[in-house]
Amino acid sequence: MLRGSLGIVTTQYADLPGPFTLESGAVLPEIRIAYETYGRLNKEKSNAILLCHALSGDAHVAGFHNGETKPGWWDAVVGPGKAFDTERYFVICSNVLGGCKGSTGPSTINPETGKPYGATFPVVTIRDMVNAQKLLLDSLGIPELYAVAGGSMGGMQALQWTVSYPDLIKKAVIIATTGYSTPQQIAFNEVGRKAILSDPDWSGGDYYGKKTPAHGLALARMVGHITYLSDESMHAKFGRSLQGKAQVGFDFSTEFAIESYLHHQGDTFTKRFDANSYLYITKAIDYFDLTKDGSLTTGLAAAKAAFFVISVTSDWLYPPYQSQEIVTALTTNEREVQYCEIRSNYGHDAFLLESGQLNYLISRFLSHTVVGDVMARNVECIEEGTTIAVTARRMITSGVNHLPVLSPAGQLVGIVTSWDIAKAVASNFLWLDEIMSRNVVTTTENEPVDEAARKMEAHSISALPVIDGDSHVIGLITSDAISTLVGRQNP
Amino acid sequence: MLRGSLGIVTTQYADLPGPFTLESGAVLPEIRIAYETYGRLNKEKSNAILLCHALSGDAHVAGFHNGETKPGWWDAVVGPGKAFDTERYFVICSNVLGGCKGSTGPSTINPETGKPYGATFPVVTIRDMVNAQKLLLDSLGIPELYAVAGGSMGGMQALQWTVSYPDLIKKAVIIATTGYSTPQQIAFNEVGRKAILSDPDWSGGDYYGKKTPAHGLALARMVGHITYLSDESMHAKFGRSLQGKAQVGFDFSTEFAIESYLHHQGDTFTKRFDANSYLYITKAIDYFDLTKDGSLTTGLAAAKAAFFVISVTSDWLYPPYQSQEIVTALTTNEREVQYCEIRSNYGHDAFLLESGQLNYLISRFLSHTVVGDVMARNVECIEEGTTIAVTARRMITSGVNHLPVLSPAGQLVGIVTSWDIAKAVASNFLWLDEIMSRNVVTTTENEPVDEAARKMEAHSISALPVIDGDSHVIGLITSDAISTLVGRQNP
Repeated sequence: MLRGSLGIVTTQYADLPGPFTLESGAVLPEIRIAYETYGRLNKEKSNAILLCHALSGDAHVAGFHNGETKPGWWDAVVGPGKAFDTERYFVICSNVLGGCKGSTGPSTINPETGKPYGATFPVVTIRDMVNAQKLLLDSLGIPELYAVAGGSMGGMQALQWTVSYPDLIKKAVIIATTGYSTPQQIAFNEVGRKAILSDPDWSGGDYYGKKTPAHGLALARMVGHITYLSDESMHAKFGRSLQGKAQVGFDFSTEFAIESYLHHQGDTFTKRFDANSYLYITKAIDYFDLTKDGSLTTGLAAAKAAFFVISVTSDWLYPPYQSQEIVTALTTNEREVQYCEIRSNYGHDAFLLESGQLNYLISRFLSHTVVGDVMARNVECIEEGTTIAVTARRMITSGVNHLPVLSPAGQLVGIVTSWDIAKAVASNFLWLDEIMSRNVVTTTENEPVDEAARKMEAHSISALPVIDGDSHVIGLITSDAISTLVGRQNP
Repeated sequence: MLRGSLGIVTTQYADLPGPFTLESGAVLPEIRIAYETYGRLNKEKSNAILLCHALSGDAHVAGFHNGETKPGWWDAVVGPGKAFDTERYFVICSNVLGGCKGSTGPSTINPETGKPYGATFPVVTIRDMVNAQKLLLDSLGIPELYAVAGGSMGGMQALQWTVSYPDLIKKAVIIATTGYSTPQQIAFNEVGRKAILSDPDWSGGDYYGKKTPAHGLALARMVGHITYLSDESMHAKFGRSLQGKAQVGFDFSTEFAIESYLHHQGDTFTKRFDANSYLYITKAIDYFDLTKDGSLTTGLAAAKAAFFVISVTSDWLYPPYQSQEIVTALTTNEREVQYCEIRSNYGHDAFLLESGQLNYLISRFLSHTVVGDVMARNVECIEEGTTIAVTARRMITSGVNHLPVLSPAGQLVGIVTSWDIAKAVASNFLWLDEIMSRNVVTTTENEPVDEAARKMEAHSISALPVIDGDSHVIGLITSDAISTLVGRQNP
C-alpha cells in the first residue's frame, strides 16, 4: 500500500460553552479546544478515530503547517495508507485542556479578570481532558469512536475514554503507558515541577509578558529527555563523544555530546512550551490512577472496547510490566485484548519512532489478522501405530520436541512429546499409541491469531496444529512465529 | 561470629606537603586529607584495607562520632566480626580530594589568596583522588594494601587503584560500578550540575559566608535519589500513598509520600554538603573512563589483584552489564576474578543496605570458600550395568535430569542425562553403558567454589559431582546452590 503525506493541514478551534465542571469541583466558565482533523467522516459516522497526545504534544499530529518543514508529531503512522489510514478513517486530535497549544490552559486569559489564569488555573485531570474531548466530539456531531489511541499520557487518555464512555468506543490502542502513575514517575515529574517552582522567574506563576522561568523549564525538560531515551540508545547515539573538542578541558563547559543534546532539548523547549502548562499537565499525570479499591481489574470493569496494548522492551519510564497489568486486568474482566511488546532500543520514545512496527501492528489490529496469515505450512508428523523407537528417531532427526500423530487417513488423532518418550521408557511401553495425548488443542486457518495465542497461554503450550474441516493438519502455529511477526502476545 | 560495633571513633587529618600535580596539569600547593582508621596494623604491615566512598560519603565509614546516634555510612559491613573485620584488618577510609568533609576541596581556603577556592578550584579526577590516598598511605607508613574496596564512585576509585598501583593491591572488591561513565550517567550528573549552576545563589561559586545555592543542590540531590532507588523499592516504600492527607487537594502542595521523601532528602543534603563539591565530584565521575583505545581489556591490563566484582539485580544506575564488562575484561586478561549479582530490590542503594549478602560475600572473598562449604551431600546415583529402562525410571522417580554412574565399588565411572535416554531409544540401545558419558567433569571438596563455577561455565553444565581421592562421589555442587548462597557466579 502506498503511504502518503497529508500535505498542508491547519489547526481549528472549538469554543465550547460552559460551565465546564472539573473533577476537583472547580468550574471553568467556558473552554476552547484546538484540534485538527484528517480524512472524511463516513455517512454512518462510524469511522472516527481520536488520537490523544503526550505531555508536550499538541493537536498537530500529522501533515505540515503552512511554511513549516517538520510534520506533526505522529506523522509516521497517520496519513494515507498508514496505520491510522486517512483514506479509511476520520482522524481527530485535540490539544489537552490545561495545555498551551491553543486549548484553554493557565496561559489563557481568564474572562473574569481579563488576565492570564497563571497559577489560579484550576488543577485538571486526565478525566477532565477526556471530558473536554467528548464535548469537542459532540460539537463536531460525532456520536461514537471507531477507535481511540495514544502513547504515554495519550495512552492514559485513551484508557480513560474506555472507562468514562464505554459505549462509545469500539477499539482502543494503548501504547507505552500505565493504569496508574507509579512513585518513580511521580518523582521525575516532581523534580521537573520543583525546577520550575524554584526558578525566581516563575514569580508565583504570574510571568506572562515578563521574563519566563526558562532555566527551570529547560531543566525539567532535560530530566524528561533522559527518561524518554534508553541507556542503549544513548550509548548508540552519544557514547562518550565530546562536542566540538578532541579532549576534555577540565572545566565546567559543555563537553560531552549528551550534555550538548540535553541543553539543546531544554533550550528549544522553552521557546515552544509554557512552564505553567508543564506544571498542570505533569500534575494530571501524577493524579492518574484507574485502580478502584486498589484493583485495576475493578477500575477497568466498565470498559467494553477491544484493546490493543503495546509496550516497548527498552522503555524504563513506562516499563512493559505496567502494560501487562492493564492486559491482566482486562483479561480478568473477559475483555478482548491483544498485547505486544515492541522490540526496540529507543526507550519510551519508541512509540513515536518505531513507525514500521507500529504501522504493521496497529493497522493489523484496526483491520484484522488470522492464523492462516502466520502459520507454518510444512509440518513434521508421525503415523499412528508406530513404535516408540521410530517416534524417538523421528524426533531426534527432525529436531522437534513434539509430533502431531496422524491416522492412516491423515487425520489428527493425537500428539507426542519427548517427555512422553521418557515416560514410556520408564513404564516399559513400546508403542506410540500407549503414550500419545489424544486431547489435542487445535486451531483453524481463520481463527484470529490472538485467539490462538490465548489458547496456547491457557494450556501452557507453545504450538498448535492448524486443522481443516476434515481434521487434516494443514499447518502449525507456534508462539515463536507469532512473536517474530508481531512481538510477544499476551503477558 | 559475633558482630560488634566500633564504638566511638574520630576523624583525623593528614597535611600532605605539595606540590600535588593533578591529571589536568594543575598544581595544588598542599593538600589535607581527612581520614579514619579502625583495627590495628599488623607487624608485617600486610593487613591494611582501604575503603573508598561514593559521591556524598566521607571518611566516617563505621562506628559513632561522639554524641551522634547515626553510625558511619558502611557500618553494616565494617567492624568486629563483619566483612571488613576490624579484629583482623586495619581499615582506612579517607574523604576524597575535592570533597567537603575535611579534605581539600573547593570550600577550602586557598593559601595563596586567603579565600575559599570556590570555582577556582582545579577539576580533579578519580585518579587524582587515588593519588591523594596513596600519599596518605605513605604518610601512615603503609607500604601495600591487602584489599581496596568500594561501591559506586568508591568502586571507581578501587578499580583505579588496581591500575595505578597494581603491585600494591592483593584483592579488590568492586561494587555496583562501571569501568567508564555512560552517557546516561553523565546526563543525570549534568542535570544536577545545571540545577546548581542555574541557582542565582550559586554566584559563580563564590557563595561562602553568604546564601548558598540550596534550591539547586536540593534539586540535584532529588534527581540523584531517584536513581539510587529502584522502581520496585519505591512501590514498596511509597506506592501512591499521600503524605498527611486522605485525599488529593488539587493543588501544587506536597501531596504524595514520594514527593515528601525527595524534598526531605534534598533539604537535609543542603545542610551537610557543599554545592561546589557536588559539581567537582560529579565531574570526576563523568570523566572516569578506564578504557584505553576503546577497550576496557586494554585499560585494565596493568591490574594484578584478585578481583571480586559485585552488582545488584535492580540497580539501573550502574546496571549489572557494566560490572560484567569489567569481569570480561579481567577474564580476558587472565586475572583472578569472581562475579556476583546480588538479588535485591533496593536498586543502587543495595550496596549500602544489603548487609547480609555483602557480609557473607565479602568475608568469603577476603578469606576463602571451598566446594565442601556449599555442596549437597546426598546424591542420587545409578549403578553401572543397568538397563536404559531402569535408568529412566530412576530419573523420573527422583525428578533429576542427570545421574552419576557408579562402578560396583562405588567409584564414579560416568554420567547420564535424559537426553541420552532419548538418544538411546532412537538408536535401539538397551544398556546404560552404551550411552553414558565417561568423561565426567568433577570437583573436589577443597576446590574453591569459584573454580568449580568456572568449570561449569566452561563446559556448559549445571552440576558437578564432588569426588574424594578414591573417586567416590561424596556430593554434588549445582549452579543453583551456588547462586542461592552467593548469587550468580560469573557473567
